[in-house]
Amino acid sequence: MAILDGIKNSSDIKKLNIDELKTLSEELRKKIIATTKNNGGHLSSNLGVIETTLAIHYVFDLPKDKLIFDVGHQCYAHKLLSGRKDGFDKIRTDEGISGFPSREESEFDIFTTGHAGASISSSLGLLEARNRQNEDYCVIDVVGDGSIVNGLNLEAITASEEKPKNFIVILNDNEMSISKNVNGFYKIISKGTAKQSYLKKKDVFKKIFGESFITRFLRKIRNGIKRALNKNGFLFEKFGFKYVGVIDGNDIEELVKVLTRIKDFSKNKAVLLHVKTKKGKGMESAEEHSDYYHGVGKDFKTSEGVFGKTLGNTLADKIEKDKKIVAIAAAMKDGTGLKTVEEKFPNNFIDVGIAEEFAVTEAAGMAAGGLKPFVCIYSTFLQRSFDQILHDVCLSSLPVTFCIDRAGLVGADGKTHQGVFDLSYLLPLPNMKIFAPATSSDLKLMIEYALSANSPIAIRYPNISEEVTDIKSVGDVTKWQEIVAGDMAVILAVGPRMLKIALGVSEKIKGVGVVNARTVKPLDADILNSISDKVVITLEENALIGGFGEYVKSFYSDQSTGTKVLSYGVKDEFIKHGSIKNQLIKNGLCEEEIILGILSVCAQKEIL
Amino acid sequence: MAILDGIKNSSDIKKLNIDELKTLSEELRKKIIATTKNNGGHLSSNLGVIETTLAIHYVFDLPKDKLIFDVGHQCYAHKLLSGRKDGFDKIRTDEGISGFPSREESEFDIFTTGHAGASISSSLGLLEARNRQNEDYCVIDVVGDGSIVNGLNLEAITASEEKPKNFIVILNDNEMSISKNVNGFYKIISKGTAKQSYLKKKDVFKKIFGESFITRFLRKIRNGIKRALNKNGFLFEKFGFKYVGVIDGNDIEELVKVLTRIKDFSKNKAVLLHVKTKKGKGMESAEEHSDYYHGVGKDFKTSEGVFGKTLGNTLADKIEKDKKIVAIAAAMKDGTGLKTVEEKFPNNFIDVGIAEEFAVTEAAGMAAGGLKPFVCIYSTFLQRSFDQILHDVCLSSLPVTFCIDRAGLVGADGKTHQGVFDLSYLLPLPNMKIFAPATSSDLKLMIEYALSANSPIAIRYPNISEEVTDIKSVGDVTKWQEIVAGDMAVILAVGPRMLKIALGVSEKIKGVGVVNARTVKPLDADILNSISDKVVITLEENALIGGFGEYVKSFYSDQSTGTKVLSYGVKDEFIKHGSIKNQLIKNGLCEEEIILGILSVCAQKEIL
Repeated sequence: MAILDGIKNSSDIKKLNIDELKTLSEELRKKIIATTKNNGGHLSSNLGVIETTLAIHYVFDLPKDKLIFDVGHQCYAHKLLSGRKDGFDKIRTDEGISGFPSREESEFDIFTTGHAGASISSSLGLLEARNRQNEDYCVIDVVGDGSIVNGLNLEAITASEEKPKNFIVILNDNEMSISKNVNGFYKIISKGTAKQSYLKKKDVFKKIFGESFITRFLRKIRNGIKRALNKNGFLFEKFGFKYVGVIDGNDIEELVKVLTRIKDFSKNKAVLLHVKTKKGKGMESAEEHSDYYHGVGKDFKTSEGVFGKTLGNTLADKIEKDKKIVAIAAAMKDGTGLKTVEEKFPNNFIDVGIAEEFAVTEAAGMAAGGLKPFVCIYSTFLQRSFDQILHDVCLSSLPVTFCIDRAGLVGADGKTHQGVFDLSYLLPLPNMKIFAPATSSDLKLMIEYALSANSPIAIRYPNISEEVTDIKSVGDVTKWQEIVAGDMAVILAVGPRMLKIALGVSEKIKGVGVVNARTVKPLDADILNSISDKVVITLEENALIGGFGEYVKSFYSDQSTGTKVLSYGVKDEFIKHGSIKNQLIKNGLCEEEIILGILSVCAQKEIL
Repeated sequence: MAILDGIKNSSDIKKLNIDELKTLSEELRKKIIATTKNNGGHLSSNLGVIETTLAIHYVFDLPKDKLIFDVGHQCYAHKLLSGRKDGFDKIRTDEGISGFPSREESEFDIFTTGHAGASISSSLGLLEARNRQNEDYCVIDVVGDGSIVNGLNLEAITASEEKPKNFIVILNDNEMSISKNVNGFYKIISKGTAKQSYLKKKDVFKKIFGESFITRFLRKIRNGIKRALNKNGFLFEKFGFKYVGVIDGNDIEELVKVLTRIKDFSKNKAVLLHVKTKKGKGMESAEEHSDYYHGVGKDFKTSEGVFGKTLGNTLADKIEKDKKIVAIAAAMKDGTGLKTVEEKFPNNFIDVGIAEEFAVTEAAGMAAGGLKPFVCIYSTFLQRSFDQILHDVCLSSLPVTFCIDRAGLVGADGKTHQGVFDLSYLLPLPNMKIFAPATSSDLKLMIEYALSANSPIAIRYPNISEEVTDIKSVGDVTKWQEIVAGDMAVILAVGPRMLKIALGVSEKIKGVGVVNARTVKPLDADILNSISDKVVITLEENALIGGFGEYVKSFYSDQSTGTKVLSYGVKDEFIKHGSIKNQLIKNGLCEEEIILGILSVCAQKEIL
């Protein structure tokens, strides 16, 4: 790592020549592969974007100029080049830096991000601020082809016919969002590029700067016809961008030359540079299976979660008998377990790409038309559809089922991806029922219930790799399941990890019962009333504010039972990346804390 | 109303000839004007869309064919033609029908709607259901030029290159969203139409069906060049629509002819029909001042609310001294009070149109760049930006201030517009402070506080036409204001209407204190602790689930004070249209209920 060792900060890169930049690309690549093998992380996208990132650092003057990544999972090379090399070995761990851009981590990161679609809007805001304050930096925005089609980006693109100067959007086109990109907008912008392969750089320059011997008028006519025939950049040109492309986003020499010219050109007009990159570039297996390597664990392993597997299998079983069931993913068919549905019943599977709002409202339409849609989106991304759930689904009480994976703490992805708000944003919605399975047998029963319910249902669960208990779901799944009786205190546990902790506590203190609180709305009033004379402990992987615990407290307060409720859940702060174990401990969600809490309350109440 | 009297249902229209349709248009117009004069409502848009609605009912076979309005505020003629004529006089009142499409009201309304941007997504879902079940109805979607640019519609339009057959989107272009349309997408689709005026119908048919004497090949070339020069429909054609237009959407004869042909043509390919209509058509003052007449009260009166007026004036005062302040509206500059800012400091006012997500994330970018953005959006519409508030603003704790009007019960607009969820969705967000002014002096102090806070602030308030008390805001606005001391019970009132009720109760029962609980997050722990031995009553115009009352209960539960908290707020159901007074009473938010509640609890506690 001879060259990388010498890069203390972005400015050190400028001394290098093209050959050294090529060597540095390979060093970055090795570093990213080795670190991701150790810590897990987003591999394919980071490998693909190395040369583009390096070229930006080389050509532009960061951090004066601002580099913004849409989503941000592709920021590893950027972090290595911007003074965070030493901390990189511990990326995504409790002691290390974040796997996403982080405003508090470095002045090179303008926003703390992790969700798709925000970059063009936030860039336009930044540019507005720059222009109003007569500053002169350039904003470079790297957006993947999966993110550019998100409604928030589309709103920003179409908001005006003109765009600010010194603004460059680099469309990083790897023909993927996370899986293969199936979006119509993407297909249109990528048309032509497939046929014509990469334009030679000579053509690129011609396209930007015209040819002196052709008159303005003739050029205009020619371009008009050219665009009508070769439409890939046309959509952007309508909204104030000079479209340049397509160039090879893994060719550092080409990138440096083109970006140098564009940097200058953008002083007159915003530019959209369309680059093609190879996801997983430089690592054979990652190139071949880029969706597998999108996000991996230690040693490049990925394991299908218990709930995802159950969801995929159960839905496939049900679809076999009922073709009205349609499973909808938003660019996450692997993570949600829907791949199984796609393989077995491709006609009953729809991937809408990173368009969560569309997914939910389309599902509302399907339900109104007589289908049985299952919208399967991670907790943190489903919050992007809050109004669609409320206005399009709940208001008409349509039978849409939401299967919400990654609910609760998510570990290494950290702040931007924590699924700890869904109970808070779903509980206030009239007509919505909320389930939280603790086991795969719970989930199976809940899916069956949803199929007959004829109203909105949310089922939320974390990603766990193995069952936490061998207790099977019994009885009416709309009621809680008492697992251990308790005469002194009863723990109401929401979800598998909470149930495991509860069972641990129950083993250690006599008289502490455990309930699998598998429905969050409605509450199980019978059980709550039956234990109102005991100390009640609520455990949830959700914000304490507006969560299950508050809902239980409110229940008892309204009943005037005077029941003491001890609530454990996620504190009122954003929870940074690290191990799930540590994230749980930091929020008091561990046996030790809960035992102390119970003992202290019981001592006060003189129960002990 | 000779003809209208004979229209019991949609099918009766089919017997009429063109002259009778013209007469019926005028009868509908008179009816709508008279009823809106009595009940208030959305006037301009409803007057503009009468002929289009009538033509759809005439040409298509409703309710077998499905008519969907985006937003839905323009559904009055539709309601009059679909069996709801008798109930129409009481539209928007406690006894009458809704002013928006309502699924529970009629089989002619497919969805219950009131928010912009959902119709193309929900239509595509419905069409998916139709096709999978081999049904053969047509879906006709009427979308205004303000709504078509919303991100949710853009996601749906761009989701695929092909669209289902028997699908017709009518773009109702009145050059307005609510105020003048300034959006880039709109400008592009409307280009050409201004120059060329309305196409003659001969050209329309040529454009749809081509001319037999021109070979396919030549036609293709010709169309390509034509589109490159005249681009208004091109954006839609790229995404699977046959673009037809522009035709006069107030010419019933033309509409009937064109729709008849399109109905047939759409069997092969989806059609986007671009019609130009005149907002306020047929009522001189409404044509001239269509934004004034967008939404009016009884006798066409509109009154600027206390808070909107204060917001506009205060921001204008502040901008005079600090040009870093930028006020952002999402198509609601009148309703929010920002018109004053626009008039006095047009450079410090931005209207992004119906693009609430973009508004919030652009503001995040502005704040990161050193500006002081104020995002002024109604409560019910701001929920469309939930993830942008969380991910783009709160995560980085950026100083964006949200001024949230129409928070609480909204009266005649009903279910789709109730602003009763904002406390629930804002409370769980780390870094967010929430204010709820009871008076204009509160609001003024809060705006001043926000300008110095350097973190996210939400200020939420209902639309009231006069102050509820002459008590002026004093002291630190981050603390509550004790207005009446109480030795038996204390009412914590959030917002002006709640404060008024509280003062009324306090006058009637001795020993009941009143606090202006003007901050919801954080709570005023000092006051809460000081009254923990009394009965505490919380009043809020927000869902009880996840609202202020629950937050207070949770506070006392954690402190183990055993404080009895009686919470009044919005029940777990969608609250239908009617008078605010009745909506309050239905939710127990009235003096009588609260007095009963206090007496009953105090009797139990033997305080009395």
